[in-house]
Amino acid sequence: MSLLIVGTVAFDAVETPHGKVDRMLGGAATYAAVAASYFTPVRLVSVVGEDYTAREHAIFRGRPVNTDGLERVPGPSFFWSGRYSPDMNDRTTLDTQLNCLATFQPKLPAHYRDSRYVFLANIAPSLQLSVLDQLKRKPTLVALDTMNYWMDTALDDLKTVLRRVHVLLINDSEARQLSGHHNLIEAAAIIQRMGPKAVVIKRGEHGSTLFLGRHVFVAPAMPLSRVTDPTGAGDSFAGGFMGALVKAGKHDVAALRRAMIYGSVMGSFAVERFGLDRIRRLTPAQIHARAKQFRHLVHFDL
Amino acid sequence: MSLLIVGTVAFDAVETPHGKVDRMLGGAATYAAVAASYFTPVRLVSVVGEDYTAREHAIFRGRPVNTDGLERVPGPSFFWSGRYSPDMNDRTTLDTQLNCLATFQPKLPAHYRDSRYVFLANIAPSLQLSVLDQLKRKPTLVALDTMNYWMDTALDDLKTVLRRVHVLLINDSEARQLSGHHNLIEAAAIIQRMGPKAVVIKRGEHGSTLFLGRHVFVAPAMPLSRVTDPTGAGDSFAGGFMGALVKAGKHDVAALRRAMIYGSVMGSFAVERFGLDRIRRLTPAQIHARAKQFRHLVHFDL
Repeated sequence: MSLLIVGTVAFDAVETPHGKVDRMLGGAATYAAVAASYFTPVRLVSVVGEDYTAREHAIFRGRPVNTDGLERVPGPSFFWSGRYSPDMNDRTTLDTQLNCLATFQPKLPAHYRDSRYVFLANIAPSLQLSVLDQLKRKPTLVALDTMNYWMDTALDDLKTVLRRVHVLLINDSEARQLSGHHNLIEAAAIIQRMGPKAVVIKRGEHGSTLFLGRHVFVAPAMPLSRVTDPTGAGDSFAGGFMGALVKAGKHDVAALRRAMIYGSVMGSFAVERFGLDRIRRLTPAQIHARAKQFRHLVHFDL
Repeated sequence: MSLLIVGTVAFDAVETPHGKVDRMLGGAATYAAVAASYFTPVRLVSVVGEDYTAREHAIFRGRPVNTDGLERVPGPSFFWSGRYSPDMNDRTTLDTQLNCLATFQPKLPAHYRDSRYVFLANIAPSLQLSVLDQLKRKPTLVALDTMNYWMDTALDDLKTVLRRVHVLLINDSEARQLSGHHNLIEAAAIIQRMGPKAVVIKRGEHGSTLFLGRHVFVAPAMPLSRVTDPTGAGDSFAGGFMGALVKAGKHDVAALRRAMIYGSVMGSFAVERFGLDRIRRLTPAQIHARAKQFRHLVHFDL
């Protein structure tokens, strides 16, 4: 079973306390696709410009990632530049050049339209909606990631697409903004009434929490002696999370808990190096070993 | 086996988004003693003024808390007043009146001096040191809580007492201040070289982390639909943590992990109501049930 992913494929310039990269491949869909590809085949929907060459495309080589839905257009690709604060808990966007993304209208190749599992990575809610509209039948499981920018500028569109989503992945401040409630249990309950039965609240270095009805699961973050670059951690989490669910072929509570851990695993790898450098070079054994480390991290006997 | 606790017994005025209490019993040693008393007998060392009456002292009635070391002096008790931010992650101290605490010199009753387990709650490091100096023999396990105020004003004293401490309980920003390192793994390693083999980093609503050599354990915070008053949460955590260790009679890794959970349990109860209102009215069954909830909160199968 394949996972359909729509989102950005981009170039990033990133500055963190550990260094600076002037130009590297990035984008929410890239991170999510690479992370998910360790678990399940991926179908990618995105757009790139002329500056995206075989060199960049090599990221998908040797992976079960179908890129028939990766549109190539004239002009440059989406570009984002940001600088992280010394503690890396905040980042400042220095530059955003939409470029080819400005006029992007996702078109699903015919052989993508039977997709049952969908991850709508962070992109305009209207584009997320358009992807759902092109599916031949109602999908089994749809997850969506978004950000405060869309709450500020496209809240109605966001609410429309949320009604068709099963899992919302969102960070804590965004959950508070979307719900209007500070308390995360209350916030999750309000968001669940907007559509998504499951709400995954990402708390960066503090881990993540799954709310499913009255059910709550807390996944820790792996303490790391060095966080090099937080860019793409949330997208890698989402890729691992959805990849694990598709691989499991079910999404009961046990599968969701396990998926939270595999999401955490992929997020923890992502931040160890700049950009995609760490998650492009993983083995299944490394992934499984880190999942076991997560189990050790929280294990106790009463 | 008894747990010796030194720290403040105080009156607090607290304002949170959920209400305001003009005067209530508080103090680090009070919270810690009440929390620990569900697990083990406690010997309390502190000082109170004339405003501390039988009404306040009732908090210890029916508990295994020996108060022979609770000195009573003329004048008023220590008073603290604070207001929490709307999200309760910050608090502003509105007033601090040291009163009888200004001249306090802890004097251990003779029958306290064989104490093997000691919790030095947040108070001047010189007083914490004086308590250790009055013990007849080297204690088995000493835990210490402190705050940024003592790092700013009595760092040398703090470093002296840290050399004689096994467990340091500290919040994340204080760990960063004390170590001079942002990364918590690095921070814990630096602090371990100052004395305490075990460093417990409290992260409020995000849980807590135990560092013991290269060993790391993450305890989640219990998501609560209402946090009424965070005052005393850390002291209640410390009381539950030390109480569980003394009860276990050992402090290997498994015992420390379990103690982290019982600390989290007591902290999670403490914040549910103002002041001591929740933790003074617990049953062993409620405590055990919440510990099981913590296990459920983090459980997953790979």
